[in-house]
Formats: sequence, structure tokens, C-alpha cells
Amino acid sequence: MRIAVLGAGLIGGSIGQAARQKLDDVEVIGHGRSAERLQRALTAGAIDRVAGSLEEALDGAEACFCCAPVGALTGQVRDALAAAPQDCVVTDVGSVKRALVETIEDERFVGGHPIAGAETSGVEHARADLFEGALWYLTPTATSSGVLYERLHRLIVALGARPSAIDATTHDSLLAVVSHLPHVLANVLVAQATSHSELPRIGPSFRDATRVAGANTGIWTDIYLANRAAIAEEIDATAERLRVVAADLRAADGDSLASWNESARADRQRLMEAGQDGDTPIELGLTVPNRPGIVAQVALELGKAGVNIVDMALAPAPDMRTGAMSLWIGGRDQADRARELIEGLGFVVAER
Amino acid sequence: MRIAVLGAGLIGGSIGQAARQKLDDVEVIGHGRSAERLQRALTAGAIDRVAGSLEEALDGAEACFCCAPVGALTGQVRDALAAAPQDCVVTDVGSVKRALVETIEDERFVGGHPIAGAETSGVEHARADLFEGALWYLTPTATSSGVLYERLHRLIVALGARPSAIDATTHDSLLAVVSHLPHVLANVLVAQATSHSELPRIGPSFRDATRVAGANTGIWTDIYLANRAAIAEEIDATAERLRVVAADLRAADGDSLASWNESARADRQRLMEAGQDGDTPIELGLTVPNRPGIVAQVALELGKAGVNIVDMALAPAPDMRTGAMSLWIGGRDQADRARELIEGLGFVVAER
Repeated sequence: MRIAVLGAGLIGGSIGQAARQKLDDVEVIGHGRSAERLQRALTAGAIDRVAGSLEEALDGAEACFCCAPVGALTGQVRDALAAAPQDCVVTDVGSVKRALVETIEDERFVGGHPIAGAETSGVEHARADLFEGALWYLTPTATSSGVLYERLHRLIVALGARPSAIDATTHDSLLAVVSHLPHVLANVLVAQATSHSELPRIGPSFRDATRVAGANTGIWTDIYLANRAAIAEEIDATAERLRVVAADLRAADGDSLASWNESARADRQRLMEAGQDGDTPIELGLTVPNRPGIVAQVALELGKAGVNIVDMALAPAPDMRTGAMSLWIGGRDQADRARELIEGLGFVVAER
Repeated sequence: MRIAVLGAGLIGGSIGQAARQKLDDVEVIGHGRSAERLQRALTAGAIDRVAGSLEEALDGAEACFCCAPVGALTGQVRDALAAAPQDCVVTDVGSVKRALVETIEDERFVGGHPIAGAETSGVEHARADLFEGALWYLTPTATSSGVLYERLHRLIVALGARPSAIDATTHDSLLAVVSHLPHVLANVLVAQATSHSELPRIGPSFRDATRVAGANTGIWTDIYLANRAAIAEEIDATAERLRVVAADLRAADGDSLASWNESARADRQRLMEAGQDGDTPIELGLTVPNRPGIVAQVALELGKAGVNIVDMALAPAPDMRTGAMSLWIGGRDQADRARELIEGLGFVVAER
């Protein structure tokens, strides 16, 4: 399998390393604007070779990962699709999805976003295990090719991650609260701490809370701008919650503070448990019409309910009009839920 | 040396373990309300023996650590002082200081607060190295005995920590921003994340930002109440900062967001570097009148300027009217600064 990686930073480099270490018969072709960075990717074992042009990078590719920063992604995805073969799945790794996904209408494109990363950036910090066990959002639409979606899903499982389908708008609103808002709060917290005339010395809780403060400005300004409406909403709601806490403090309302703190404990517990793997995967088989949008529909329906598709496989029938789909779902409860949801979509499900 | 530890939880237990492992000829006596917890402290090697009464615990003690939760500290410190010998230093480990320090007027009392801890609590999680390299605030006042302050300072150095003198009001205002505000933000963040109809799956930045969400409700309600005015002020200022960010987002003002993010990066850098150890300690010698308040005055002056007293020693002259004080200060720059500050207080300083 030939994979094109466009942009060789931490994420692109880690995709390349993971693919080269975990897949058989794989060739990873790197392309990007900086020849020097591509050389470093080669040295880091992230790519097999450097392509001199986009066309060369995509020649014979079956999958293409667009890893430009959010601000440059739309252009990169468009260029990649123009150069990509007809049966090549093109995806990206940007952390904001709606604007991009709404702009690109091509059955070969499926938006993606791995929930992985680090304080560091650059291909020197790339690791083959960066995605091990990590959630990897995919944002298929009704125009996405089922066959190409399946290929991408399996490829991402092979990289060690757990793909989960989600619609782009929901993705952006969730990311606003689980990623962008924590970045905003970290920035605000360090600003507030340094506003004191005496510079405070910090302890572990502050260090943890501000680990992401002042993250890469180029990348993050793009993210803030791309998802500004959703982030501003989250900020408003957060400020309102803070107003309530300040009022409880001024009223010395211990009961209210205690119950607020207890809720936070329960909330955190729920968040930590959400999306954990189930037990032994159970295989569900279903027959579906072989047309674009069906695979996305099933994946999105399960993703929405928090059901984790551990693995999937598609097999078109000889007449190419129907296909058999196998889904492996983690654990009894999730499998039962999946079956119910898929039957709700009008398909017949069999457990294998 | 006999040390009394009142209250055998994570902090009290770790003090006991550290003292028993790092000091020669030490005996740690434990006392508290729960006989069962004291037994566990004994099993965990945190104390040498359990005292059946407060009087027995303090009999012959040279130092006493009060480790009750913030809400019960004033009573515990008062009781300890009533039972403690005349030459016993009594301290506490509470994370809010002003109300306590203003209430207790006794030359044997020096408020304290180690900046150490963990997500866990309970003596089972106690560790002899919990305070290794950790900042440990001390809040001496003009009534504090210099000799007893010195003993406490040296004891805390021996436990592995870095004592730093600070006045109680400044302490509370700094702690409001570096510890209490991060707890408030963590609670608010999990509440906001779980308010979405779909439960989001969280990544590393969210996990870090909310590690302390819903921390022990009993302990934290007390802390919030004890420091409510300072925390409410920090919350107001934070909410105002958030309002500005939301406005920049809605205006799609990339320049403003970029420069805000750059400031956060610089702020975090400054905070991370503040209070780091200097190089080889330099010894400064000074002669001071041997009366209460002088040691506190010197320690507070240096603490305020961020100068770290690595170690200190006091030696009263035979007439008991003057004393020689030795201070070890980390590195050339800090030693020069210390000398300047102490000379500013009117004392003659010699480098040894």
C-alpha cells in the first residue's frame, strides 16, 4: 500500500512511522514545502522517500494524509484531490472540521482528526505509538465513498487508534469544549497569575492546568479563528458558571459550594469513563445497498451513541449493488446497542 | 528529636515517613481522632508510636505538625499550643493562612504550607519523598520566636523541601491564583463539558486541565470558604479576561488572538522559571539582635524578593542579646540580592 503524507510535522511524521512499523508492504511518500523538514522526516524514519511534486507524491497512492496547519488545510486538501488517483482516500488531521468538510465535496474525501499530540511539535518528536489507543474522529458525509471510508477506518485501526465517526458540526462543538476551551483557560490562568505584583511560585495543580498555555501561536490562532463561534459560546457559558461560583463564595454558601464540587467529581468520572473500550469485540454482519453515504450513515449513528467500532470490513457483492458489512463492536452492551441502532436504520443485522 | 504529628493523612503521614527516613535520632509520635487511621499510619511506617492523648503526643516534643483539614485547624493548633512544651515549635500544613495566623498569637507558632500533594489522599499514599524539592511556605510574624523558626526551617530542609517565608495575606492571594482558581476552573470545565447533549470524549489537554476537578469535597469546601474573598476576586478578573477573548473571537481578530497567545507563552515561561534553585549555595553571615521578629523579618524580606534560603543557622551569643545568623543562598545573583536586602534592613552582612 502506498500512502502519501503531506506535511512532515509531529502528526504527519507519527503517521508515517506508525504505518511503516505496523503495516506490511507499505511505502510512505512524503511531500511538503520545506525540503529540509522532509530530509529530517527521512532521517526520523517517518517516510520512505521524498516526492519532488504533489503529483509524484500521489502517484499510485491509496491513501493520502493532509497534515498542514488548519489555516492551510483547505488548499492542501483541494490540491491533493486534484492530483490523487480515483481510488485514493484523502483525509486530513485538522482539529476543526466543519468549514473544511462543507467546502470539499468529493467522494474520496473523509475529514479526520486524531486526538493525540503533545506539548512538542516537529518531526523529531514523532513516535510510532503516538496514536496507540487514541480516539481518531472521522467526519464522513453522504457523499463519502463507503469503500474508501472502510479503507481509511482500517488503516487508522492499523495505526493503533480507535476511529469514531461524527458529523463535523458536532465535532467542532465538542472540540470547542474539550480542547479549545482548556487552551483558552490555560492562557487566561497564566495571564492572571503573572498579573500579581509578586510572581507566584507554582505547584503541580497549576502546572497541570496550564500545560498547554501559549501553545504554538501560528497553529492555534488558526484553530481559534476557524472555530471562533463555537469557542465564544463555550467561553460565555463558562463565564456564567464562574459568576455563580463567585456569588456562592461571597455569600459563604458552603452547601452550594460542596454540592457544586460533588457534581464536578461525578462529571469528571463520567467523562473519564466515556469512550472506554468494551470487552471482547463482537462481530455484527449486515447487508447494505452499495452506494455512497450508507457506511457514513451507519458509522455516524454508532459514533453518536458512543458505540466504538473496533474494526470494520466491507465486501461488495459481485453485482456491486449490495455489500456485506462486518462490524466488530467492543463488548456485549455496546454490541446490543449497535444492533438496535442499525436495525433502526432499516438494515438486518446478524451476530456472527 | 521528638516530633508530634497530629492527623495522619497523606501530608501528616509523609512528614512522618520523611522525618523517620531522613533524620537521625528521631521519634515521631502520632495522634488523631481515628484510632484505626493511626494504626494504618503505624503500618505505613509514618509514626513510631501512637499517643493516647494530645498531652502524651506533645510530651517532650520539639516540633509539632498540625495536619487537620483547614476547617478544623484553628482548634487543633490552639489545643496543641496548650499542651506543647515551652520550647516546642508548632506549625500547620493548611493551604489557607491569614485567618489562622491572625487568630493565633503565640511565639511558638509559625504557620506553614507545603506545596505538595497528589490526586490521592490517605496515609496509604504517603511517601517519604513527597516534599523532595517542593516549596514549603512559612508565615512567621513579629511574635514568632527566631530560635524556633530556625529549627522549623532546618527541619523542613531536612525533609527535602525548600522553605520560603511569606506574609499570610500575600500567601492567600497567591494561593488563590495558583491553586484555588485552577480548582475552580477545573470544576467549571467538567460541568461545561458534560452540559453537551452528547458526552464528549476527552484527550490529554482536557485530562490535564481537569485533573483536580471535584477534589475532596470536605477539604475543598473549607478551603474555598476560608479564602473566599481572594478567590472571588481572582474569578472576577478571570471572567473579565474571558470576556475579552470572546470579543476577539467574535471579531475574528487574529492579530489580537496571536499576541494574547504569545503573552501566555511568555507568562508560562516566567512562572516555570520562578523559584528555581540557583547554583552552589553561598553562605552569608550576619549579627542580629536576639529578639522575636528579627528572623521572621529577614526571612520575609528575602521570601518577598523570591530569594531562596537554602539553609539557615542561628547561634545566640553567650549574653543572649545578640545572635549570629548564617544563611545559605542559592547562587551568586541571589546571594548579592540577599546581601543588599539584609543591609537595607540595617544589618551588617559578611560573606563566608
